[in-house]
Amino acid sequence: MKRYTEFDTNELKNEFSRLKAEYDAVRAKGLKLDMSRGKPSPAQLDVGTPLLSELIFPEDCRAEDGTDVRNYGILAGLPECRRLFGELTSMPAENVVIYGESSLTLMYDTFARCMLFGADGSGKEPWAGQKIKFICPAPGYDRHFAICEDMGVEMVKVDMTPEGPDVDAVLRLIKDPSVKGMWCVPKYSNPDGYTCSDETVRRLASMKPAARDFRIFWDNAYIVHDLYGEGDRLLNIFDLTRGTENEDMVFEFVSTAKITFPGAGVAAFVSSDANVAAMLSHLKAQSISHDKINQLRHVRYLKNAAHIKEIMKKHAQILRPKFDLLKSKFREALAETSAGWTEPNGGYFISMYVRGGTAKRVYGLCRDAGLTLTNVGASYPYSRDEKDSNLRIAPSYPSVEQLSAAADVLTLCIRLAETEALLSERA
Amino acid sequence: MKRYTEFDTNELKNEFSRLKAEYDAVRAKGLKLDMSRGKPSPAQLDVGTPLLSELIFPEDCRAEDGTDVRNYGILAGLPECRRLFGELTSMPAENVVIYGESSLTLMYDTFARCMLFGADGSGKEPWAGQKIKFICPAPGYDRHFAICEDMGVEMVKVDMTPEGPDVDAVLRLIKDPSVKGMWCVPKYSNPDGYTCSDETVRRLASMKPAARDFRIFWDNAYIVHDLYGEGDRLLNIFDLTRGTENEDMVFEFVSTAKITFPGAGVAAFVSSDANVAAMLSHLKAQSISHDKINQLRHVRYLKNAAHIKEIMKKHAQILRPKFDLLKSKFREALAETSAGWTEPNGGYFISMYVRGGTAKRVYGLCRDAGLTLTNVGASYPYSRDEKDSNLRIAPSYPSVEQLSAAADVLTLCIRLAETEALLSERA
Repeated sequence: MKRYTEFDTNELKNEFSRLKAEYDAVRAKGLKLDMSRGKPSPAQLDVGTPLLSELIFPEDCRAEDGTDVRNYGILAGLPECRRLFGELTSMPAENVVIYGESSLTLMYDTFARCMLFGADGSGKEPWAGQKIKFICPAPGYDRHFAICEDMGVEMVKVDMTPEGPDVDAVLRLIKDPSVKGMWCVPKYSNPDGYTCSDETVRRLASMKPAARDFRIFWDNAYIVHDLYGEGDRLLNIFDLTRGTENEDMVFEFVSTAKITFPGAGVAAFVSSDANVAAMLSHLKAQSISHDKINQLRHVRYLKNAAHIKEIMKKHAQILRPKFDLLKSKFREALAETSAGWTEPNGGYFISMYVRGGTAKRVYGLCRDAGLTLTNVGASYPYSRDEKDSNLRIAPSYPSVEQLSAAADVLTLCIRLAETEALLSERA
Repeated sequence: MKRYTEFDTNELKNEFSRLKAEYDAVRAKGLKLDMSRGKPSPAQLDVGTPLLSELIFPEDCRAEDGTDVRNYGILAGLPECRRLFGELTSMPAENVVIYGESSLTLMYDTFARCMLFGADGSGKEPWAGQKIKFICPAPGYDRHFAICEDMGVEMVKVDMTPEGPDVDAVLRLIKDPSVKGMWCVPKYSNPDGYTCSDETVRRLASMKPAARDFRIFWDNAYIVHDLYGEGDRLLNIFDLTRGTENEDMVFEFVSTAKITFPGAGVAAFVSSDANVAAMLSHLKAQSISHDKINQLRHVRYLKNAAHIKEIMKKHAQILRPKFDLLKSKFREALAETSAGWTEPNGGYFISMYVRGGTAKRVYGLCRDAGLTLTNVGASYPYSRDEKDSNLRIAPSYPSVEQLSAAADVLTLCIRLAETEALLSERA
């Protein structure tokens, strides 16, 4: 098929006029559609709802060792809950600390502890007061960047690739001792859906940062969130750092936000013995114990890693048709454009790369036609997508019908913006 | 009745020998008793357990505005939950932020935000890196002191009095601009059970600290935790600071830890418009929303302030006999000693003041006889009770039978330690 870039000016003008008329007609409909938020749909929430009837009576509220989960105590989390997350992450239960309701809070707090007490928790080298930098693979998760901004930490961008963050760029940056760490969503990255290759994990695990207190914030948000078949495989980075001088370099974060309930799940910190001990040494001033009622509910409902896989298949059954729909709509409607998009095996997002210089325009066109997209540029540090090309597409929340209508609006706007841009270049 | 201090040496020797024999007999029993922890008893937990069946089905999970509480969103908490805590604290809902499961975490995080971003959240004057001091009324809550220690903040002691913290001492200390704040449990203080008098609240509300960013951490942990009649009355400090230059001086903290479940309740931050806005400006990087399922469960179960009063009467019915028992045991068994104790109208503790220089000894004697007390000195900054006199007595958790046995051991040890000390003075 002939591409817009190959159209002669007359053909482009005709196509633009046709698309413009179509757009005006769509706009007149006064649609109200939303593809902006990576949150589960009501049908997915129903999957988890049996969890809510797990602890009802006093006699339900006993942990396996007899602990009454309704009372204070057990700072690091119920042993059975630590074991469950250990099984999920292929780590010993002792290397797991169960946190509160959200891994975002856990990541923020972990960062804040580094600011106040240093990465090793000793209080000797707090990051606060130092001019420090953090490596931010981009596009990436906007809330990681928001944490850096809140802490006043300078963000240094490296590109995301289908193999994970650009390790060559990372290796160059870590020669600077003021570069104290990096963010990484190692599996089904937000928004590309890329998973770190074995090679990427190996190179990250064995790198030699100038900063001895360098930390990788390994946000394994989509650890079991496969959509197709067995999904992507991710090496356990701790298998590669254990016993090396990088033993304490990685903080891993997981949560049940998209297994059970967003913002009302259970988050877990996974790391080396020393990092767990350092965290608990401060956590004991911050908490007597996190919500063990919720922990035990989760253990009773989730049972074990195999059962979690079964639960995730139910989520995949709801999500897969949405991803399939978008992919087929994109293939069909965008063949003439320069747009490209990712087709991940899991996670919550598709990354759409429109013709450079048109992402903001697509966003505006969509907005004016009643379709809310994630703020353009949000996936980049300081919201700066230099190419003005990336759009984060979140298929999970709308129904298939809404998503179909939204995809029609989106693809129309992408085509309109590209023809418009090409015409303006030639003018 | 003749006091030990009035005994002649021979009488004292006889009494000591008699008590020592009694103690040895008790010790031989191998008891296992605990009066150390201020946690509710199983019967109290049962009071709150109907809450657990409030949200079971998907259709239960809608907030009053239709929000599905199982999903992300609403950073400051459900409006109905903010309103409920507003009613409880006599404040507008807009001045309430609903936090996670525990007010300890909320207080720690609030302190950490002051360290990282300054008391006004602007980032202009972070407390971290400055040599700052905090006023700590003592005896007080050990976990307040633990937060200061964790943050590396110097603690300056002021005495607790039956009217609240010694305000004259506070007024002297706040002339130092490095004194950035103070802790205060204004009602039923831990461990004395004292409530700030109107005069104390008025003087605190109108003081003029040299540090413009001075903050009172007003830990209203026992706001509705009355044991006798209507309980103590506490002025709403915000009624006194509103519209004055101290408008932003107070952070109030409340929680349902001892209304519903310790460590699995709902905590709330209550403060001025500016302080709420400052908190939310950082909270948005730390959280998408706290556990709204738990918030809605609490609202459904607690209903309103009047209903919370009814619930607290059930707690009082369980707790009051325990306080009554201790008071009568103390009056009966300690009449010959120099010991004094508080008789609060609410809260969770009784403060026991034994003869100066004997508290550690009493603690050790109790421990060796199988009775665990709160670590001696824990209620003082740096665990330093200079008089070695205070013991925090926590009657809530043991059964009445266990408590009776524990009180017998405790009073025996107090008598033994005092006679021993008097004999040693006279030797």
